Amino acid sequence: MKNFAIQVKQLPEPGLLNSDTFDIVENPVPELRDGEFLMRVIYLSIDAGSRAQLDDRGGYVIKTGPGQIMSGSGAVGQVIESRHPDWQVGDYLATTRSRWSSIIRVKGDTPFLTKIDPKAAPLEAYLGIFGMVGFTAWLGITQIAQAKATDTVLVSAAAGATGSVAGQLAKAIGATVIGIAGGAEKCQWVKQELGFDDCIDYKTGGIANSITKHCPLGVDVYYDNVGGAIQQAAFNAMNTHGRIALCGMVTQYSGEGEAPGPNLMDAIIKRLSLRGFLANDHMALLPTFQQEALNLYQRGQLNHYATVTKGIDNIHQAINSLTSGKNTGKQLCQIGEIE
Amino acid sequence: MKNFAIQVKQLPEPGLLNSDTFDIVENPVPELRDGEFLMRVIYLSIDAGSRAQLDDRGGYVIKTGPGQIMSGSGAVGQVIESRHPDWQVGDYLATTRSRWSSIIRVKGDTPFLTKIDPKAAPLEAYLGIFGMVGFTAWLGITQIAQAKATDTVLVSAAAGATGSVAGQLAKAIGATVIGIAGGAEKCQWVKQELGFDDCIDYKTGGIANSITKHCPLGVDVYYDNVGGAIQQAAFNAMNTHGRIALCGMVTQYSGEGEAPGPNLMDAIIKRLSLRGFLANDHMALLPTFQQEALNLYQRGQLNHYATVTKGIDNIHQAINSLTSGKNTGKQLCQIGEIE
Repeated sequence: MKNFAIQVKQLPEPGLLNSDTFDIVENPVPELRDGEFLMRVIYLSIDAGSRAQLDDRGGYVIKTGPGQIMSGSGAVGQVIESRHPDWQVGDYLATTRSRWSSIIRVKGDTPFLTKIDPKAAPLEAYLGIFGMVGFTAWLGITQIAQAKATDTVLVSAAAGATGSVAGQLAKAIGATVIGIAGGAEKCQWVKQELGFDDCIDYKTGGIANSITKHCPLGVDVYYDNVGGAIQQAAFNAMNTHGRIALCGMVTQYSGEGEAPGPNLMDAIIKRLSLRGFLANDHMALLPTFQQEALNLYQRGQLNHYATVTKGIDNIHQAINSLTSGKNTGKQLCQIGEIE
Repeated sequence: MKNFAIQVKQLPEPGLLNSDTFDIVENPVPELRDGEFLMRVIYLSIDAGSRAQLDDRGGYVIKTGPGQIMSGSGAVGQVIESRHPDWQVGDYLATTRSRWSSIIRVKGDTPFLTKIDPKAAPLEAYLGIFGMVGFTAWLGITQIAQAKATDTVLVSAAAGATGSVAGQLAKAIGATVIGIAGGAEKCQWVKQELGFDDCIDYKTGGIANSITKHCPLGVDVYYDNVGGAIQQAAFNAMNTHGRIALCGMVTQYSGEGEAPGPNLMDAIIKRLSLRGFLANDHMALLPTFQQEALNLYQRGQLNHYATVTKGIDNIHQAINSLTSGKNTGKQLCQIGEIE
């Protein structure tokens, strides 16, 4: 039994990663103490933070420097050895954070471990609609923006992990949901697969006009995953008492620096609320969310979609897939077999 | 009995007003119908909106064009004739909006008329701490930003009408309160008269460093009256879970246009909340506020301060006093005698 870890070789230049970013290094299999178990990792969650932690500017995440092992916002795997009474060899589980390693030692009483019934839903979905991205989308739509059935909800990065869930959840509430995504193919997917009412292709330009055209009644809720020019255009289209859930700003995660934000005078005139949030602050709500997400899944109102990059050696490509917007749904890297 | 109204002569250029902005025109005294009374105006409230309604750009207020009579956010006056059973000749009252005229016809059942006991507090205070500016400050501190005793509260335009009340209210809650004002004299006044813990003179430059120095534990609540560079510096100094109450942006009311706002990435990292608000949305809370303000006033925790420009002919100077920041406390124009 071998254990491989993903270690930073050198910090990348701004933009896409190449094969010089990481070393795959062999480490000893951790020794177990009472109350712990070993988990072999099947899927690693790839997030905006995965790229951002390699950028030594800004402050989104703890930085990971050369010689350090990467970590991420979650993994799905299987117990292969256990000294904890509640965890048996063969059990599947999801974690909400994880070292990037093929075998992980886990304290069995760690909060936010989810035991998975592999028959209830695909394993992958526990890093998607049932995982932290699903939870983030749910928080943004239901708690931060408090979307209602009468709202027009605009979702950027609509084909992405969080956006695809945010829009599905807003549809389940009964809102009119308009997505923004890059390219005709993605927009088609957002409409047909995810069931959004419409989707704007920002790559055709004229984003401000497109929003006005696609949201004739204005925007009540904007779920912001991107920042930048789309944020500005959405801000301008907000209705009185509109709510902006600031979830992510993928346009500035690749070390390309910061542009100014919208002038906030309109936030007074329109009495807007803008709220940044991170799911980690709200973990007490995780079980509530998981139950709601499972109910919606079983009713067919919330579906799981993922883009899976295979192989631990391709982890930099998994990150590039995300930062260049090639993924639809949740971006994962599969580093272990499902069996 | 003559009745004079303040009518726009011509829209001003950006910046200070001159004597060509308004005509003082004589109008007939309005005829009363049942349920109405006539009020002679003693004080007119002068607000940022008084200048902004003369700016044909932006959207803060309804615009007032040449030939139209100005209106404002309130007046204090006295009943001089009545056909309403609840209002007697000689009664003093405050309104929350008012045509700019020396005699006003009022429907006696209009909401938000406050009958004033002239012995309880100076008449002026009903356009200050007990009026819409006091209410706005109270909403911002208690409802929008939800300031707590453990917070560091930063208040811009601290010597101004709203800022001076916001800071006093935050002090009454037990918070550490730091003001920002223009000039050593104003800062001294904010500290000694208003009882703020400290006050930053933004005119000495280096606002970012000054905020860091005066708020060594960071800023939990920023009460924004000004926008612009001070807003940006305050934004940068916010603590995690900080709250920004967006009340006004006096730096951009004089037709000088809009600068960009802060990049909102930090709003995610720090989970900030930014909320614009207008008091008119919350009028159901006005009685609650007025009772609280009166209690604080009687306990000496909330004091009234005003800068009074005298004479209807000097109304443009009253507005200039406000927009150029010459006032301490509430800016008023006295157009009638107190008796």
